[in-house]
Amino acid sequence: MKNSADYLFINAIVLSMDADFNQYEPGGVAVKDSLIVAVGAEDDVIAAWDAPEVIDCDKRVLLPGLINAHTHVPMTLLRGLADDLRLDVWLMGYCMPVEREFVSPEFVRLGTRLGCAEMIRSGVTTFADMYYFEDDIAKTTAEIGMRALLGESILMFPSPDSDSPFDALAYTRKFIENWKDHPLITPVVSPHAAYTNTDETLQLAAALALEYDVPLHTHIAETAIEVENMRREKEMPVVPYVKKQGLLKPKAIAAHCVHIDEGEMYTLLHANTGVAHNPSSNLKLASGMAPISKMLEVGLNVGIGTDGTASNNDLDMFEEMRLAAFVGKISTNDPTSLPAETILLMATRMGAAALHIADTTGSLEIGKRADMILVDINKVHNAPRFRRDSNGIYAQIIYAAKSSDVIDVMIDGKWIMREQQLLTIDEEAVLNEAEVYAKKVDAFLAEREQSVLAKLIAIGGASEEESYEVQAKVAVQDIQPILAALHKDGIAISYKRHYKEYDNYLLFDDPKQGLIRFREDHFINDAGEVTHVRSRLTHIGQTSERHFPQKVILNRSRYLAPANQSLRFYREYFKPTGEKEVNKVRLRYLITFENEEFYINLDTVLTPSLGHFLEVKTRTWSKHDAEEKAKLVSKLVAFLGASPAQTQVEDYVEML
Amino acid sequence: MKNSADYLFINAIVLSMDADFNQYEPGGVAVKDSLIVAVGAEDDVIAAWDAPEVIDCDKRVLLPGLINAHTHVPMTLLRGLADDLRLDVWLMGYCMPVEREFVSPEFVRLGTRLGCAEMIRSGVTTFADMYYFEDDIAKTTAEIGMRALLGESILMFPSPDSDSPFDALAYTRKFIENWKDHPLITPVVSPHAAYTNTDETLQLAAALALEYDVPLHTHIAETAIEVENMRREKEMPVVPYVKKQGLLKPKAIAAHCVHIDEGEMYTLLHANTGVAHNPSSNLKLASGMAPISKMLEVGLNVGIGTDGTASNNDLDMFEEMRLAAFVGKISTNDPTSLPAETILLMATRMGAAALHIADTTGSLEIGKRADMILVDINKVHNAPRFRRDSNGIYAQIIYAAKSSDVIDVMIDGKWIMREQQLLTIDEEAVLNEAEVYAKKVDAFLAEREQSVLAKLIAIGGASEEESYEVQAKVAVQDIQPILAALHKDGIAISYKRHYKEYDNYLLFDDPKQGLIRFREDHFINDAGEVTHVRSRLTHIGQTSERHFPQKVILNRSRYLAPANQSLRFYREYFKPTGEKEVNKVRLRYLITFENEEFYINLDTVLTPSLGHFLEVKTRTWSKHDAEEKAKLVSKLVAFLGASPAQTQVEDYVEML
Repeated sequence: MKNSADYLFINAIVLSMDADFNQYEPGGVAVKDSLIVAVGAEDDVIAAWDAPEVIDCDKRVLLPGLINAHTHVPMTLLRGLADDLRLDVWLMGYCMPVEREFVSPEFVRLGTRLGCAEMIRSGVTTFADMYYFEDDIAKTTAEIGMRALLGESILMFPSPDSDSPFDALAYTRKFIENWKDHPLITPVVSPHAAYTNTDETLQLAAALALEYDVPLHTHIAETAIEVENMRREKEMPVVPYVKKQGLLKPKAIAAHCVHIDEGEMYTLLHANTGVAHNPSSNLKLASGMAPISKMLEVGLNVGIGTDGTASNNDLDMFEEMRLAAFVGKISTNDPTSLPAETILLMATRMGAAALHIADTTGSLEIGKRADMILVDINKVHNAPRFRRDSNGIYAQIIYAAKSSDVIDVMIDGKWIMREQQLLTIDEEAVLNEAEVYAKKVDAFLAEREQSVLAKLIAIGGASEEESYEVQAKVAVQDIQPILAALHKDGIAISYKRHYKEYDNYLLFDDPKQGLIRFREDHFINDAGEVTHVRSRLTHIGQTSERHFPQKVILNRSRYLAPANQSLRFYREYFKPTGEKEVNKVRLRYLITFENEEFYINLDTVLTPSLGHFLEVKTRTWSKHDAEEKAKLVSKLVAFLGASPAQTQVEDYVEML
Repeated sequence: MKNSADYLFINAIVLSMDADFNQYEPGGVAVKDSLIVAVGAEDDVIAAWDAPEVIDCDKRVLLPGLINAHTHVPMTLLRGLADDLRLDVWLMGYCMPVEREFVSPEFVRLGTRLGCAEMIRSGVTTFADMYYFEDDIAKTTAEIGMRALLGESILMFPSPDSDSPFDALAYTRKFIENWKDHPLITPVVSPHAAYTNTDETLQLAAALALEYDVPLHTHIAETAIEVENMRREKEMPVVPYVKKQGLLKPKAIAAHCVHIDEGEMYTLLHANTGVAHNPSSNLKLASGMAPISKMLEVGLNVGIGTDGTASNNDLDMFEEMRLAAFVGKISTNDPTSLPAETILLMATRMGAAALHIADTTGSLEIGKRADMILVDINKVHNAPRFRRDSNGIYAQIIYAAKSSDVIDVMIDGKWIMREQQLLTIDEEAVLNEAEVYAKKVDAFLAEREQSVLAKLIAIGGASEEESYEVQAKVAVQDIQPILAALHKDGIAISYKRHYKEYDNYLLFDDPKQGLIRFREDHFINDAGEVTHVRSRLTHIGQTSERHFPQKVILNRSRYLAPANQSLRFYREYFKPTGEKEVNKVRLRYLITFENEEFYINLDTVLTPSLGHFLEVKTRTWSKHDAEEKAKLVSKLVAFLGASPAQTQVEDYVEML
């Protein structure tokens, strides 16, 4: 008398991915009540089990569903938003402004449906996500029927759904309470990264994960600069720092780990931290190549992840596996490194272990949940098949199979895809809704991109505060006579400063755009040493506001911002059509003359070699006031002995 | 009145890949007599052209067919033969033995059908091939209807169809004569590489290519060791060397160029040599990352190739393009390097230029041959679509599209694939025939792999010559008394040698396999200096042939081979289940005693520390003779003052 199962899979090449890497051909698997109840040679399984639905696998490969160990699923809706950019340009110039404007429960639900559709098609049955509105992501994922570890991003900046990390922590607590007993969803605590959190928020996140015994998912050492900054600020690399904050006490998952050393690997090992390796992302963003062979040698559990579509641009685990093998080989200079069997292990059983759910999924073993996929290897791109060596089948899956060869997907004992038809997602509707979003996002960005000033404001840096200045700039032969004149009676000096100023002007074909000035002020003390450096960004409008007699002008509109990013960032972000450089030495005085304050700049313009200039400036807060000030400026120019005939209305950059 | 074309493509997103990167949406293309006769906005094309067949492209992307700039197509039949091995192990241990046994006109015809089927499915319309029986490849390719540059491999070793490079050169001449006017096939001259040719054969190849004004296709600087060897042997890197042989005078195509410097790039540029970049192959074999960004900066035409399936394992140009972008970014540490538009250019118009056929194909321009593909970007893995930036569509093709999104392929104005159905290849038949080959190859290798000795013979190194030796090995307290005894009357010393011997024994679980000894002899002169080193490989059979009284033995069967490869090679190739090391100092004498020659070894075994041994050996050429010799060996042992009671029958390795 046979046992009764729900499903019986026969005539398959079964890759169990169990501890002995058992393969069965022809093999069989029986599934009952979401669980695998038999795996083995087809004859043995058929002899012991019967089921109402018998699936003839037609010599396809039956293997555990793939584990996508790190992603940001709803961002799939921003796939292709902007590419071939530096991470900071992409993030601050495109992703974050768009997220601030668009991310909502509706957005994440649609993005989750889009991302899950793609992942199911690429054979993924489990994924680890970190984003916003995670409760909506969880509801959508559960409806679709995928297995997932989900965590609300905790970070010290306001996010689309949290004003502070404390809000995100409170959200996470409630989220865990809601989902902790769900058969598919594992709620996790997700402090985004060490560099986007404080000691306090990291410690609170760790405590929360321990309190509920849930995993903790974070980004670790993705870029070299992250490690450099950590070393400078905390005098240690990233892993010891997060350990110090208690972040490795829970069941931790460390995404990336591109720049960690062997000592840090042992720290992660002793904490039983899992690693999520994201080769496409690390290559596309030029972050580096993670030392995966070394991690495996040390004994770490390393899974493979796609990361978000922003840096990939897809969620294709077959591409990711192949690339993980290639990166393993080239980074060790050893073609035998990370062989196909090891890569498939990382994407299945070891990936599940890295996510701390190895008891549930990751291999075809009795008692595990039935998360399985069928892959067709009878295609021209995967022929012929050599059977001599049991490793051959792994090489076929890793080096030649494609996501489009995944035919059927079962998760938790339920059909999710059959004959490449998704059963729980209406793809047509998803595609149409996604196009609507893309059009809105395009319109939002296109409007912004029409204006350099709007782009400056979009990156959050610019204050739209105008500083009206009445100004005269006069060419002088020599600055010594002016310096002497500054000490005449009638002038009181409040302070004096001495800089070298390095200005890069970003120019645009359309004169209406104005221009962007990136300025580095090197402050120089009396000993001639540079004491500190300040960078500022200024948007300079097209024309002066107003002209007064004797070429005194009411300065053109200016919008100031601290330059938090590098010149290179702004170059890539603003995409200027030209660039000019002006370097000068400036002596700056704040003086009082006829009861009004004036700034006096004595400039020696070195690059280009334009000679010496006197600038007289004064602020004004109304246009009515400006006319009186203009007269005073002319008077002061004369008082200092400069020739009003030498007055210029052009900026230095315009004299080039 | 409209002009009349054969085909009119409408409602497409047309990526012309012309010099201005013109895109048309909705765009149209008209094809007449194999040529593109119109490209532009749909309205303009429809207004001017009519055709009996109008193809509604349904908003798919219409772009030039991809150019696979370097491959070995018939090897597709060996896909997955053995993976995750070093190139030398794969080549000499698997590929070459199998090629020697199997490659035939039938083999290359089938392999070409298999490879072409896969390439068409991945959107390839042109490929550059180098293999054997190239005339059969040409016939098959022409029947299928693909465009190709084909060249018979010229190399200084016997190949499956040539006994010498001179045969291959003669074959090439005839091949060029046969094919030089074919509309699809461009015959080329293919000296395999500098390191597999002589000065003479390279010069003859160059002269032949010049004589017929056909391209010349070769491998250049694929691995660091190739460059090292060239520098050592010719005192220059690879590019100057091949230039010196005249190889860059014809329209040359240099595959790989992984290890070339900027000077070499300029040499290639001035010679108008095209480069074929093979990122999958270079990563999978850990050859390195070619400096492609630098090459493009210098101005070289760089195409993209899949290389053979041996090192890939597929012919998927979509994977290759994506990887080329990633390699470009990670190798320069710059995510803006090799943007999507540049990558697609390399795979189309620039690839055609690298192959010296840019007048014929590579872009959708009036007057070029109609080599075009339709790619569906309306899939979940490629949604949504942002249209704001004209680069977005290139990013969709490079980072998110898959070969399985290629729907239609037209080559030279003829349909080759429609709605993913191949029109000129019977895939089912190809798959079945390929399986038959794979079974034969598997059987051939499986038989060989049953025997360590057969594997030794397969790599061509072992001579199956037996050296029967009658031997006694006696443990001694000290070698000084033996040394003194060697100078007694009755012994004449012919010569003396002094070595350090480093032996690595590769052990196998099955005792029938015997064992492999890898020995390095370091020859030491009277001053104690190592004068030279010799490596030898010996297969040592399981048991001694015969035992005589007093533990004198007729030595077990031995097969000797020079060890041309490294120990690491043999480790990977023989896959021993264990390994042991024996290091010793040996004083070796050839002496005459009672009119017979004997070898006397006085060994001090250092690793492991086994002490001192006297070995007395003499050759015998018949088993009948051996008994007499055995008596003499015993007598000599006693004459030298050693104790017959201390005689051992075990090898040192067995004493561990």
